[in-house]
Amino acid sequence: MRTKIHKIKNIMLNVVKIGGNVIDDEAQLAQFLADFAAIRGFKILVHGGGKLATKLSDALKIPTQMIEGRRVTDAETLKLVSMVYAGWVNKNIVAQLQALRCNALGLSGADGNVIPALRRNPKPVDYGFVGDVTPGSINVDFVKLLLEQSFTPVFSAITHDARGSLLNSNADTIASSVAIAASHFMPVRLIFCFEKNGVLSNPNDDSTAIPEITYREYEEYKEQGVISDGMIPKVDNAFKAIGAGVKEVVIKHARALNAGGGTVIKP
Amino acid sequence: MRTKIHKIKNIMLNVVKIGGNVIDDEAQLAQFLADFAAIRGFKILVHGGGKLATKLSDALKIPTQMIEGRRVTDAETLKLVSMVYAGWVNKNIVAQLQALRCNALGLSGADGNVIPALRRNPKPVDYGFVGDVTPGSINVDFVKLLLEQSFTPVFSAITHDARGSLLNSNADTIASSVAIAASHFMPVRLIFCFEKNGVLSNPNDDSTAIPEITYREYEEYKEQGVISDGMIPKVDNAFKAIGAGVKEVVIKHARALNAGGGTVIKP
Repeated sequence: MRTKIHKIKNIMLNVVKIGGNVIDDEAQLAQFLADFAAIRGFKILVHGGGKLATKLSDALKIPTQMIEGRRVTDAETLKLVSMVYAGWVNKNIVAQLQALRCNALGLSGADGNVIPALRRNPKPVDYGFVGDVTPGSINVDFVKLLLEQSFTPVFSAITHDARGSLLNSNADTIASSVAIAASHFMPVRLIFCFEKNGVLSNPNDDSTAIPEITYREYEEYKEQGVISDGMIPKVDNAFKAIGAGVKEVVIKHARALNAGGGTVIKP
Repeated sequence: MRTKIHKIKNIMLNVVKIGGNVIDDEAQLAQFLADFAAIRGFKILVHGGGKLATKLSDALKIPTQMIEGRRVTDAETLKLVSMVYAGWVNKNIVAQLQALRCNALGLSGADGNVIPALRRNPKPVDYGFVGDVTPGSINVDFVKLLLEQSFTPVFSAITHDARGSLLNSNADTIASSVAIAASHFMPVRLIFCFEKNGVLSNPNDDSTAIPEITYREYEEYKEQGVISDGMIPKVDNAFKAIGAGVKEVVIKHARALNAGGGTVIKP
């Protein structure tokens, strides 16, 4: 095993995060997966959930609890997101990748104990079955083993507390944590794919993707309100990765996975 | 790798199938998983679905199509069973086993292409997204690799057609197919666990478990109608396994996993 690890040291590992909006669109997802399967060498996919969980939750009339704009994962919601993310979405992606000759292996954080997460402290605010993930949470030996055996790990954002309970985690954080943990044994490129062309200087104009962004510029954009809401955790995760040993971090449109463009995160 | 396989040659692999009724009962499932985790050496779990899929299907008002008493797996039903079996049920079992220090790894047949199944011929009767599994379907190298690395594979009955579609398969058949495939490289014991004490000579009296049964006796019981309906595919799978190289096959109550009793299938 050790000798193999040395041999692969100079091959780039691509960790790709794909967001929920692409997952909801069958044609876009198929195109994205074809592009992902075409990446040579080592790769890992981390996927979000899409709207199916919300649709099902509405259809089943499971009440949505929100605290300060954030959804609470109660027991019923945990069951639902586990079904949708670790079940249908994950296995559907794996089956499609297999048909593209990519030897995908779907994982929740419970499988092989690959991501034991820390259940978020219920004080001051109890968000329920939510698991916080750090680079130290990743069972990197298992990830290494899978890559060495030519598998492509496909992570859903369901983790576990190692005490018997599944947890709902953030897919962007899983992507950056996996990238950082893997960067200890090989060079890593982290690509956040979503439905926009990158970090936009005008959030309403998709032609305004910022080609490169430094942390100082990011702080200025945040102050000006140019970068806000849902983008902030993604960009935070991107800077965390570039600051912790990941070689390249890009935020870009899913349809441009193997093309140029997007926003390159500068250390 | 090879040397390891030789070393493990004389250690028994336990392939355990657990039925749906136990999965629906939280306390029974917890007890069963504690017993399963306590099995020393190599082990594999194959699980059924339970009633959650039917409950959800009713709640979502997905119409159930039946042909000759058998459910048709249309696209919506496939999505549902994938969610429930490969998602919630599989990941919940894996998380519980991890808490019991059993290094479980949940699998659908798409993961690592471990079970590419054959979609059932739509003629004369189209059962939809149903996949037939044989011992030859099992990617036994991958199963071996997992066992050698001390993982406990946990199979749901969701497979795939290797062309991008998931399929709904029979969990009893997966259990016997995995057991037969694995018996080519190590001795295997196959245990079907369910909510009865074994094959009963009086289906209404749980104290009438037949201690041992030969194929000739099985045929007689079938003719007499003593063994009927849902038991037939299970016992068929049991005889298929004992006839194809599996060392021991037992059908027993889930609560007696590590105790004696049940019905021993005789070659």
